[in-house]
Amino acid sequence: MTHYAELAQRVMDYCDDLGKISQSIDYIDRRYLSQEHRLANDLSAQWARNAGMQSWQDTAGNFWARYPCDDIDAPRFLIGSHLDTVPNGGKYDGMLGVVLPLVFLQYCHQQNIKFPFHIDVIGFGDEEGTRFGSTLLGSRALTGKWQAEWAELRDVHNVKLAQALQTFGLSFDNVKNAELSPHNILGYFEIHIEQGPVLEANDLPVGIVNAIAGARRFKFSLAGCAGHAGTVPMQLRQDTLVAASEMILDIENQATDAGLVATVGKLDNSPNGVNVISGNTTFSLDIRSDDDALRDIVVNQILCKCQEIGKRRGITVTYEETHSAPAVTCDPRLQKTLENAIVSQGISPMTLFSGAGHDAMAMAELCPVAMLFTRCEKGISHNPKEAIDVNDVATTLGVFDDFMQQLSANSYTNTPEVA
Amino acid sequence: MTHYAELAQRVMDYCDDLGKISQSIDYIDRRYLSQEHRLANDLSAQWARNAGMQSWQDTAGNFWARYPCDDIDAPRFLIGSHLDTVPNGGKYDGMLGVVLPLVFLQYCHQQNIKFPFHIDVIGFGDEEGTRFGSTLLGSRALTGKWQAEWAELRDVHNVKLAQALQTFGLSFDNVKNAELSPHNILGYFEIHIEQGPVLEANDLPVGIVNAIAGARRFKFSLAGCAGHAGTVPMQLRQDTLVAASEMILDIENQATDAGLVATVGKLDNSPNGVNVISGNTTFSLDIRSDDDALRDIVVNQILCKCQEIGKRRGITVTYEETHSAPAVTCDPRLQKTLENAIVSQGISPMTLFSGAGHDAMAMAELCPVAMLFTRCEKGISHNPKEAIDVNDVATTLGVFDDFMQQLSANSYTNTPEVA
Repeated sequence: MTHYAELAQRVMDYCDDLGKISQSIDYIDRRYLSQEHRLANDLSAQWARNAGMQSWQDTAGNFWARYPCDDIDAPRFLIGSHLDTVPNGGKYDGMLGVVLPLVFLQYCHQQNIKFPFHIDVIGFGDEEGTRFGSTLLGSRALTGKWQAEWAELRDVHNVKLAQALQTFGLSFDNVKNAELSPHNILGYFEIHIEQGPVLEANDLPVGIVNAIAGARRFKFSLAGCAGHAGTVPMQLRQDTLVAASEMILDIENQATDAGLVATVGKLDNSPNGVNVISGNTTFSLDIRSDDDALRDIVVNQILCKCQEIGKRRGITVTYEETHSAPAVTCDPRLQKTLENAIVSQGISPMTLFSGAGHDAMAMAELCPVAMLFTRCEKGISHNPKEAIDVNDVATTLGVFDDFMQQLSANSYTNTPEVA
Repeated sequence: MTHYAELAQRVMDYCDDLGKISQSIDYIDRRYLSQEHRLANDLSAQWARNAGMQSWQDTAGNFWARYPCDDIDAPRFLIGSHLDTVPNGGKYDGMLGVVLPLVFLQYCHQQNIKFPFHIDVIGFGDEEGTRFGSTLLGSRALTGKWQAEWAELRDVHNVKLAQALQTFGLSFDNVKNAELSPHNILGYFEIHIEQGPVLEANDLPVGIVNAIAGARRFKFSLAGCAGHAGTVPMQLRQDTLVAASEMILDIENQATDAGLVATVGKLDNSPNGVNVISGNTTFSLDIRSDDDALRDIVVNQILCKCQEIGKRRGITVTYEETHSAPAVTCDPRLQKTLENAIVSQGISPMTLFSGAGHDAMAMAELCPVAMLFTRCEKGISHNPKEAIDVNDVATTLGVFDDFMQQLSANSYTNTPEVA
């Protein structure tokens, strides 16, 4: 339909407008409780008004706007994503999932389209965690997982979270009032750019997220024996960089075989001299899967293999687990509804898991969640080069429209069917 | 013989004494043209006087002492090593090869033992190159390879080499007078700690050096694509750290198969984040062999393999050669004489190549050279833990004594036989 193309262009324009609100003159940088956070909420409120929506800000600084049902006692369906960015980030990561529903609801308002539930659009104030080092602060406030000790979290300017809330006109002690009661919430739906290359590789504009991967992270430390590059024969070496290399290749092989992702992103080597055999090497491991059990099996295999490599090479291998989070499964009924919506647009419905974290992870503690991915160019995000195609946005609007119509028609309730 | 044990203890004591002459109060550090360089020369001169030797300093600051032949026109046999150290170095690297001959000649003087040639003991002022970043300055002055542009070499305090020579009481322009004429030089012999673990692994106190390895060095740069650790499937990655790991393992395999040494000692990774796929990785390669042709074949195989790995992984591989030096072969006749001397001490004669550079590399341009390695503990050098066993020093003295007696008895001349 032609109106999707028009609406898609408006989505692009709004994202451009949001992209101009930045703490930095050199790049996009919009962090939690900054002046730019407020400006982004204000701009979103303006767009909500054009949809006839009432908007407000909760006690954690999250933006809210309601497209109301005529029945004031109707349940609520939540749709959202985040309005903060990483430093030197892009215009669509997060923003697409706030702007696109608002633009869609502007159209619904204009066409006088009604729903049998309230639609609450949320723009979370913090997902990236860039300012205070803890992610999902916005959505976790809604789930009652706000921690008292976070008052002491500090930003790079040594400003405490409690102090930043106060400066923003909020109060740390009142954040708990942002907590939602799950009883009348039908679900949470999030549209997000994929941040990966899978849709592009499959020539598809959108995809259904079946789960948000749980990540485990480790730090490995290898201790061998530094030595002279000229005088120690290969057979007598305890070279930690070569041992680490063997481990990194094994990790790649095991992850590929198991169909999950594992990354050694950080490696530090010592003494790190051109003519010195390495005596100490540390490296990180980040491993993610939509299947916690599979992930844990592969982790155990990797740990065994690393010990075996260390033993064979005369190298001491120690490791510590630095992070562990379980995978979050998306609601089967909402997934099926998304699948129907995608098929109705003549598109092959692809299911993929999200390796990156999203607000939906926190929201899953509250209600059934679903996510739709929109293709992004080369899978690039957290980068000024982040890009999406306006035609894909139009397709996303069409899928979203059909999805919402199905929810309407089926008088969607909070009782999920077993898929 | 018991006198070797006594002399060996004196060698250990002298090395201890030299080890106290340091620019640092925390560790041994004695650099070219420092006040401590002069003190080390002075102490060596004192030990030479006890051997009835006349000593002097050449125009490059090298220490010399002569154990004269009665025939003033007799040829000269040169014996030496270096008196400088790396920062935080050991007491034996270099020093053993100056102190041990002086102690031996003290004994010869006492016993009125004569030789049919002048014995010149040299303590080179710079082998390590720690002060001015260029190695073998002392021995290269003797070979006429002193370069005019070295006047501008600077130390960490921005002092130029020419200025440092002047402060030491020397003159850059006069260094050329240190050059030796090869015509009356029988050979150069150097005793040195092994700086590697081969003798220890073979349970041998000494070994014959057949060659000093030539080194080639490269810097590899890999360019792939950084990305999100959670969102890019293994098959779509262009991870430069994994590619580097595969190359490092291949380098180890090829070096082991070919029986030479190759070391990736330095690796720098970017962005080097726990949750980011690596997009740029650089690493060094140092490859050494006593056989230049073999080394060059292996280098070519490594370069081919790295390109193949890069191509398969979608990674651009570039490299530059940063250093290249040919191997230096030790004189077959002197090697045979050393072998006889070792066998006469009831020891199995093992031949090995030196992976580290030594003054003998420069001296080989002037005359036949030979080197004897003494076992050092765990192969450790350039470290305060550098250690040798007094019994091994006694054995080294015995071998050295027999070696010198053979040279004497055979009326050693400058005409090498074909081995």
